[in-house]
Amino acid sequence: MTISVAVSGATGYAGGEVLRLLTAHPDVQIGAVAAHSKAGQRLGDLQPHLHELADRVLTDSSVESLAGHDVVFLALPHGASGEIAAQLPAETVVIDAAADHRLESARAWQQFYGSEHAGTWPYGLPEMIVDPSGTRQRSRLEGQSRIAVPGCYPTGSQLALAPAVAAGAVEPTDIVIVAASGTSGAGKSLKPHLLGSEVMGNMTAYGVGGVHRHTPEIEQGLGWASGGKQVTVSFTPTLAPMPRGILTTATARLTGDVSAAAVRELYLEAYADEAFVHVLPEGQIPTTKATVGSNHVQLQVVVDERAGRLIMVAALDNLTKGTAGGALQSMNIALGLPEQAGLTQQGVAP
Amino acid sequence: MTISVAVSGATGYAGGEVLRLLTAHPDVQIGAVAAHSKAGQRLGDLQPHLHELADRVLTDSSVESLAGHDVVFLALPHGASGEIAAQLPAETVVIDAAADHRLESARAWQQFYGSEHAGTWPYGLPEMIVDPSGTRQRSRLEGQSRIAVPGCYPTGSQLALAPAVAAGAVEPTDIVIVAASGTSGAGKSLKPHLLGSEVMGNMTAYGVGGVHRHTPEIEQGLGWASGGKQVTVSFTPTLAPMPRGILTTATARLTGDVSAAAVRELYLEAYADEAFVHVLPEGQIPTTKATVGSNHVQLQVVVDERAGRLIMVAALDNLTKGTAGGALQSMNIALGLPEQAGLTQQGVAP
Amino acid sequence: MTISVAVSGATGYAGGEVLRLLTAHPDVQIGAVAAHSKAGQRLGDLQPHLHELADRVLTDSSVESLAGHDVVFLALPHGASGEIAAQLPAETVVIDAAADHRLESARAWQQFYGSEHAGTWPYGLPEMIVDPSGTRQRSRLEGQSRIAVPGCYPTGSQLALAPAVAAGAVEPTDIVIVAASGTSGAGKSLKPHLLGSEVMGNMTAYGVGGVHRHTPEIEQGLGWASGGKQVTVSFTPTLAPMPRGILTTATARLTGDVSAAAVRELYLEAYADEAFVHVLPEGQIPTTKATVGSNHVQLQVVVDERAGRLIMVAALDNLTKGTAGGALQSMNIALGLPEQAGLTQQGVAP
Amino acid sequence: MTISVAVSGATGYAGGEVLRLLTAHPDVQIGAVAAHSKAGQRLGDLQPHLHELADRVLTDSSVESLAGHDVVFLALPHGASGEIAAQLPAETVVIDAAADHRLESARAWQQFYGSEHAGTWPYGLPEMIVDPSGTRQRSRLEGQSRIAVPGCYPTGSQLALAPAVAAGAVEPTDIVIVAASGTSGAGKSLKPHLLGSEVMGNMTAYGVGGVHRHTPEIEQGLGWASGGKQVTVSFTPTLAPMPRGILTTATARLTGDVSAAAVRELYLEAYADEAFVHVLPEGQIPTTKATVGSNHVQLQVVVDERAGRLIMVAALDNLTKGTAGGALQSMNIALGLPEQAGLTQQGVAP
Repeated sequence: MTISVAVSGATGYAGGEVLRLLTAHPDVQIGAVAAHSKAGQRLGDLQPHLHELADRVLTDSSVESLAGHDVVFLALPHGASGEIAAQLPAETVVIDAAADHRLESARAWQQFYGSEHAGTWPYGLPEMIVDPSGTRQRSRLEGQSRIAVPGCYPTGSQLALAPAVAAGAVEPTDIVIVAASGTSGAGKSLKPHLLGSEVMGNMTAYGVGGVHRHTPEIEQGLGWASGGKQVTVSFTPTLAPMPRGILTTATARLTGDVSAAAVRELYLEAYADEAFVHVLPEGQIPTTKATVGSNHVQLQVVVDERAGRLIMVAALDNLTKGTAGGALQSMNIALGLPEQAGLTQQGVAP
Repeated sequence: MTISVAVSGATGYAGGEVLRLLTAHPDVQIGAVAAHSKAGQRLGDLQPHLHELADRVLTDSSVESLAGHDVVFLALPHGASGEIAAQLPAETVVIDAAADHRLESARAWQQFYGSEHAGTWPYGLPEMIVDPSGTRQRSRLEGQSRIAVPGCYPTGSQLALAPAVAAGAVEPTDIVIVAASGTSGAGKSLKPHLLGSEVMGNMTAYGVGGVHRHTPEIEQGLGWASGGKQVTVSFTPTLAPMPRGILTTATARLTGDVSAAAVRELYLEAYADEAFVHVLPEGQIPTTKATVGSNHVQLQVVVDERAGRLIMVAALDNLTKGTAGGALQSMNIALGLPEQAGLTQQGVAP
Repeated sequence: MTISVAVSGATGYAGGEVLRLLTAHPDVQIGAVAAHSKAGQRLGDLQPHLHELADRVLTDSSVESLAGHDVVFLALPHGASGEIAAQLPAETVVIDAAADHRLESARAWQQFYGSEHAGTWPYGLPEMIVDPSGTRQRSRLEGQSRIAVPGCYPTGSQLALAPAVAAGAVEPTDIVIVAASGTSGAGKSLKPHLLGSEVMGNMTAYGVGGVHRHTPEIEQGLGWASGGKQVTVSFTPTLAPMPRGILTTATARLTGDVSAAAVRELYLEAYADEAFVHVLPEGQIPTTKATVGSNHVQLQVVVDERAGRLIMVAALDNLTKGTAGGALQSMNIALGLPEQAGLTQQGVAP
Repeated sequence: MTISVAVSGATGYAGGEVLRLLTAHPDVQIGAVAAHSKAGQRLGDLQPHLHELADRVLTDSSVESLAGHDVVFLALPHGASGEIAAQLPAETVVIDAAADHRLESARAWQQFYGSEHAGTWPYGLPEMIVDPSGTRQRSRLEGQSRIAVPGCYPTGSQLALAPAVAAGAVEPTDIVIVAASGTSGAGKSLKPHLLGSEVMGNMTAYGVGGVHRHTPEIEQGLGWASGGKQVTVSFTPTLAPMPRGILTTATARLTGDVSAAAVRELYLEAYADEAFVHVLPEGQIPTTKATVGSNHVQLQVVVDERAGRLIMVAALDNLTKGTAGGALQSMNIALGLPEQAGLTQQGVAP
């Protein structure tokens, strides 16, 4: 079975990563490689690491370019996916790497994004526990033709917290997340604070005070896991001097309903059958570098009895598992392909 | 007035930074430059950035080498200061950059450091609020001849949290700190995870679960600020791919006793007269890079009404304000010199 | 056809990269994963990026462990391969990533490595032009059971210079190479100058004055290309603040026998049929990042008429094409497998 | 004596570094801090590391703003200095950090910069040997009121090569320079290849083929040193993943007129009395990090007898000695102040 795939937004970091992974997918034929303002240019000039595709010429990102493929990946700025998706045939599998279709609440969308809500699509985080009984999101992706790729921060935060929240081990209103992201999370936009001279040797925070757009997305997912309880998250993202990777440090107050040993067991069980989520042996701490270029997530969970909190540390590559890898994985599930197809790369380290 | 100064541990990062700052101090004459195993070597071979001192030959770190100076800086591994200090004359000003004399509680020392407690010296963090009435630690350093330099993490954490804790604006038992440090915080020790190949492009956590040694130190200082209440801190340090700098993200549950506007006002007032601690204008976020090589601290404080927490972000250079700069500043106060002498450098950016 | 492969030196950077690539090779079954001092440990503790192999237990690196495989990769310190190789069956394909078997001249070996010469094996750089008529090294690797993997610097330098040298376009005694390598080229050895705190934000040179061990290797290969003329290279390696990658800047005096336009044509023709060596379009400059994690080499060549020199710039990943990728490619050729098997990954960027 | 100083171009990297150094100058009062498009903004928003000047408000960069100061630093884009300088009083000391007034040859200016030549000012590189008898450029700066600050690459290249060229130790037409610069050398311009995501983990070259604008400047200076011989330089700049620093590797064919030992002696003598240029002991290699934030240059010189070339390695901070530090040093000389005033900082390492 060969699947024809188009990628829109091919000149950005997310689009480039989708293409990188697609070249390794055994069942995929890459069709249109589309970009808005760079149409007509050689891909090799803009994504020189995609050696195999260097001589591809970028098409425009019109519906005409994208239609006629089995799958279309949209790696566009937030707010641009809705209109295009609406014009693609219903049977085309559309995978949206932007935020447009992630949130169920039109009110939360309006509050955090300030535009009209484009609607809600199935959420592409297969391993996530989405109710107290341990149901996985995977089952909700099979056979779908519209999938919303999770945000990079929510991918790590939700995988880190969902088992404890679903089990009632932590208070869902006393959750603090501080996450450090590499700069590719901010895309290729030409902003002074993203210049190499500014970034190297520097750590800073942003979206301080609960205003980052991934906050309602994390609360939504943990709300599912909790079985509908109120979830409040204090989320502070920081910018780290590295191109890729997210290290999530999440802490939550222990309810006391689950013993320390049992909490760890929860996590081991939750991810025992997952190919991409690894609860590390005790004492080993996740490192973002171990996940670079791969679809793998490293996770550690420790009880801090002194402070009465559960500490979860998760590492992943924001562009791979956090965006393009998660997107391919969801495509595989939607199409009934082996879930790991095209995603067998190990991390690139050192 | 010329003060003769000896530095022990001159080949390490802390010792090197003390020397760097001393070369800029108008009242200081650098005497013995001592090192344990490298005695007899040329300083320029080991600290090539100290051009002015390149031809200095390292002496051994015996009491004989160090005695006879007005001031002795000890930049030694934890546990080594006590014995040397005991042999130096009482009138010699001894500034200990190690942890040995920071903690008041022998029990906490024993628990976190696992050796015998060497005693407690005045704590060298002049700007810190040390009781609910707003007293500064500065007053407790004047005229002292023994000073314990704070840890690098506690410097940022305590400056960030003390005003809110002292004012009762936050719950002292619901404090979460996640801090990212540059690698120099780990010293020059030859450990695989500190190799450049491992560190670059990588974020990881360590001391997960409340076991980092700076935890009791932070709780001790915030305990002073709170007027003796119980303080519990969940502290997770992370290692960032940069040589210098600490970005501290501290959050604490608001008590509701102080309004959002008043909390910000608290901070503006707390540091209005401080030369080295800067509460940034609203909307500007601290960056570690702005503080590199300087004794300055940048601070921002934001109320997250949604999560009911106060978010404090602090940036400083772990080697300067976090170690050697704080040490010189304390020396200046102890000796009655202008507090900023030798510390007028701005940050080195980009 | 399934080939069983053993890897000795599995805990180092070269060994880890061999394993990473082997997990993606369709015809390979990974057998013994051997290490000297770490035998008995879990691979996941030492190479956490190799998620798929995390639970493998390291064997010792004895001949007993390695024998019984179709292929053995040796990723050992220089000087250790000879003895082990001698004890492995003649029909076992042994690929030596160390320098031991690269040089033909026992005198040069003695001079630069200071030990006894272990002998000479076919040189594993398939795309290299090895005589003035344009013969490729590839043909000398088919069916071999002993292959010496080139050094990382020589891989870039020789691919950059051989076409011009073979064609007589440049003076073989007026060649200057300055190359910048990422830190993984120095391996995992615990040396102070390789600490992250030292490396980040720093460029330095080493082996200054023509004493680097790769100098005779480069001269040897270019000697082949020149048809036996004397070749003298001034080679200066530098250490760059990045984990992976080599950027080679080679310049050589033009003889005038070949026109500027013809020199470029030479390169385009030389690598037209190569899957892994890409002469970039005019104006596009190689970047190491485009090659990270891949077996690809980017090359540009420009005539500086003003200075009368040819300027060649080459980028590659020192661990992939510069070591492990070249090793797998040579294995594929030796065994008659498709040359690109297991090497289809694109670069990981940004 | 207090000197009033204005800085134009205060929001860029060069302007920021001039301000950073001026805050440490004992005789300087900082007057107008000017910027073109950012006039009216708070300096602290744009240069947050200049804590002491954070509340300064940027003025426009008109002649009116700048006039009335003893000294004016121009840190403007190339081509903008000429007009402003022409309108400033003749007695105002104008220090131009741009290229406009560096070249003597209007033809070379036209060829490399493509605009009309603004004229030639004394060249602000005091330590440079400018004729075969060993005269220093210093003597040509005393009492001057117009000074052209050298380019960052020429500063390192000329200090590295001038002693050998002046002594006839090397062929002035067989010089090859490959230099690696940190990204701040490219300024704050918003170009995709300067984004942190692109820069980190990456080395690339640019201006390949002898087209970089610093080429004629280096040839001009070495022409002075040679006593008017023809000088041809092959110069290739590369971009390194660090914010600051230039590592210059220069090689030149030995004439044989000077013995190996004598060449080293030449360098030791040439810089014996210089406070800022350090010929390192044999075996010690310059590192850019040792010079960060300082006005110091590290230099090593080695004879490669095998290749018949002299290898010179120089390290400096492109923004300090390479721009702003050199500018202050020249100002000091022009005004008859101590040459090292305001420039006593050591390097900031690690």
